[in-house]
Amino acid sequence: MPDLTNVKALVFDVFGTVVDWRTSVIREIQATAVSEALEGIDAPAMADDWRAGYPRVMQETRDEKRPFATIDTLHRAILDEDLAPKHHLETLTEAARDHLNRAWHRLDAWPDSVAGLTQLKQRYTIATLSNGNVALLNNMAKRAGLPWDVVLSAELFGHFKPDPEVYLGAARLLGLTPSEAMMVAAHPGDLRAAAAQGLRTAYLPRPLEWGPDREFRGKREDDTFDLEVDSFVELTEVLDPSIVRR
Amino acid sequence: MPDLTNVKALVFDVFGTVVDWRTSVIREIQATAVSEALEGIDAPAMADDWRAGYPRVMQETRDEKRPFATIDTLHRAILDEDLAPKHHLETLTEAARDHLNRAWHRLDAWPDSVAGLTQLKQRYTIATLSNGNVALLNNMAKRAGLPWDVVLSAELFGHFKPDPEVYLGAARLLGLTPSEAMMVAAHPGDLRAAAAQGLRTAYLPRPLEWGPDREFRGKREDDTFDLEVDSFVELTEVLDPSIVRR
Repeated sequence: MPDLTNVKALVFDVFGTVVDWRTSVIREIQATAVSEALEGIDAPAMADDWRAGYPRVMQETRDEKRPFATIDTLHRAILDEDLAPKHHLETLTEAARDHLNRAWHRLDAWPDSVAGLTQLKQRYTIATLSNGNVALLNNMAKRAGLPWDVVLSAELFGHFKPDPEVYLGAARLLGLTPSEAMMVAAHPGDLRAAAAQGLRTAYLPRPLEWGPDREFRGKREDDTFDLEVDSFVELTEVLDPSIVRR
Repeated sequence: MPDLTNVKALVFDVFGTVVDWRTSVIREIQATAVSEALEGIDAPAMADDWRAGYPRVMQETRDEKRPFATIDTLHRAILDEDLAPKHHLETLTEAARDHLNRAWHRLDAWPDSVAGLTQLKQRYTIATLSNGNVALLNNMAKRAGLPWDVVLSAELFGHFKPDPEVYLGAARLLGLTPSEAMMVAAHPGDLRAAAAQGLRTAYLPRPLEWGPDREFRGKREDDTFDLEVDSFVELTEVLDPSIVRR
């Protein structure tokens, strides 16, 4: 194991790593289908389409085809431009669209997240480092019981991950050198970008992120991360066994 | 009492309102005097001089005589430029100066702060809204047990209070209208500036902030704030008696 004794803060990807966005968004779509009397909604397909629109609007932002905006604004653009015509949501009122769009504020944590984060918080600063906006991350944390010390977001830097500004900005705001911060994520691309800026990396794959029917790809053969663990609880055990024994 | 039912977040001034900076900084100066074998240090006078330098460097920043910098940098400038010659600290090593400068990360909470904030967090988003930088506020919170949901700082906006950008930026990041946020502070000027941007206000005077020997001025006769309370526990009782009964 590499020497990680100077790591002072853990910064976490959120969508997929800390919370199970797919199960939660499917549940929220189904609730809207019932309350708004929508017929023939394929909630899993719609959830997957919603998430699939995400890299496109990110790239459009990076290419300056869109102004930098919050994820709330981008989720709403995908809902209105892609999902509404494809999934026959044209009858949804403004209020119902707004409520549905905020489904992304109401995501459930993976079963190990709250227990693991609560233990890690005893020794480390634990912060989000997400493309989600601050309000979304705060609403999610209060609902799901995620005990963040600091809510850090792409919104604070005017750049989305994996742009370098996000990783370097997080270390700067926490008063740390990059190597005193460790990025924890289920997504190898996020970790590669963090490592390129000097952060430590912990890979925590979530094979069920995209649902039980999709083949899980995982990391590339040439990916090497400082740590690889299967849950937040295992991350705690690896980083500091003394926390777990307390 | 005004109708405050749409308030969703409480944002707090920190130095003086949540923590007792003077007692804590005096303690830290005394510890440095012992460890560095400094003689004839008047710790209360030096703490007061340190704080007195603060409005000056803020104003120099506002007048663009200094670039915007973190409070850590500004505290260090006051230490090196004002306190070192006046209080005979020239022999202090760089390491000792850096440790002493971080005294402001190690401030103790007033006795009612942790209990009151913990109760208020059940119903409201609770966030710092301080001129202190994010790293300082996080280090302070972890040491003192302050249970913030979100750490908001002048550093995120490139402006210090009482500039309007800070109050409006806080509401924006929390996804709220200004009137859905309430500023809680011991300092009438902070509250006046928050109110001018549409935030709700709660005045919580701390008569001992400047020590027992200084006359406490308090608010002006023409100041009117939405709430006036004597402690965070009273703030909880006034805002939501049901929290206290739980």
